[in-house]
Amino acid sequence: MKLYEFSLAPGPRRVRMFIAEKGIEIPSVQINTRERQQFTDEYRAVNPSCVVPTLVLDDGTSIGETVAICRYLEETQPEPNLMGRDAKEKAVIEMWNRQAELEGYLAAVEAVRNSAPMFEDRGVAGVTGGVPQIPALAERGKQSMGRFFAKLDRRFAESSHLAGDTFSIADITAYITIDFAKRAEIEIPDDCPNVARWFAAVGERPSASA
Amino acid sequence: MKLYEFSLAPGPRRVRMFIAEKGIEIPSVQINTRERQQFTDEYRAVNPSCVVPTLVLDDGTSIGETVAICRYLEETQPEPNLMGRDAKEKAVIEMWNRQAELEGYLAAVEAVRNSAPMFEDRGVAGVTGGVPQIPALAERGKQSMGRFFAKLDRRFAESSHLAGDTFSIADITAYITIDFAKRAEIEIPDDCPNVARWFAAVGERPSASA
Repeated sequence: MKLYEFSLAPGPRRVRMFIAEKGIEIPSVQINTRERQQFTDEYRAVNPSCVVPTLVLDDGTSIGETVAICRYLEETQPEPNLMGRDAKEKAVIEMWNRQAELEGYLAAVEAVRNSAPMFEDRGVAGVTGGVPQIPALAERGKQSMGRFFAKLDRRFAESSHLAGDTFSIADITAYITIDFAKRAEIEIPDDCPNVARWFAAVGERPSASA
Repeated sequence: MKLYEFSLAPGPRRVRMFIAEKGIEIPSVQINTRERQQFTDEYRAVNPSCVVPTLVLDDGTSIGETVAICRYLEETQPEPNLMGRDAKEKAVIEMWNRQAELEGYLAAVEAVRNSAPMFEDRGVAGVTGGVPQIPALAERGKQSMGRFFAKLDRRFAESSHLAGDTFSIADITAYITIDFAKRAEIEIPDDCPNVARWFAAVGERPSASA
């Protein structure tokens, strides 16, 4: 297997953290998206969507999309378990992981991609240009992050981890979302102590620095 | 089990089509989102995210999020298989399903929610108000759909179905995306004959009218 990724991008970091939790070693190749290496013909052949990460299997199959890569690794090495053991666990974890992604991660992406100078004219990932930033969408992303923090705080008032009693892929998604959102100067609000406590605890895991 | 859904919303339709392909019968309750029934205290207790659909299991567990509901049903009744049988199949199908959702479905949602009068001040699902529509985002959604159609057309030039040789959840997501996008007057472009052929074929499946 080979992992194409970029050390400074949040999507690949989700996969790196997942891999670190699993204790798997996978050779990796850096695709520097700040130098637009995701748009080279060479990488386009690996992943036509021109985004990182991509996991290429030994038979040459390319798996794009962070959660699909995690799914492959979970299926081939179920322990330590991060995506659930039975139908109900799998569904509950997927629900929380999707909410972390759709209500959190994508909101943070909206905020960052529509304000950071490096994404000028590239408001959508994987597109070479012609997609102007939308300042109102950056603002909406910040608002959505506010709702996401409030939701997380209610959740962590009653649950040690996002999807239940144990650490899962949903915690990884939420953790990296919050860290990534700092690039748009979005911080954990003072009135969300449960989020702050959970965030600090996850940050102490060795995988957090992967 | 009980499915809370709304017959006119695209998210629930993804689940209905999946259920029809499986041949499962699940009692359902209509939550009319056009009358804002998703924001009642009663439904908020079922799904605090205030979106449809939600599958409530016999033990009272609420599963929100379309794909998480499909995951539960796939795990409990694997045949006919719609999400893959082994690690590689599961990962490839999840990759295509995510691309159909992130590059297609969410783009269609951007186009519809930021232009249709019924979503005035409600640009984000599950939020009661205070989220103004962003016309530039409706336009960006239309552009993204153009790229999505082009991508699908290249794919269907070489593959009978989105994730490979057999019908899967990825086809459901792409099919419903295209049907939903019509609400923003987005149609399959004339230069995408492969998409048109595949769309017509999927439309002939009994599940398409579920």
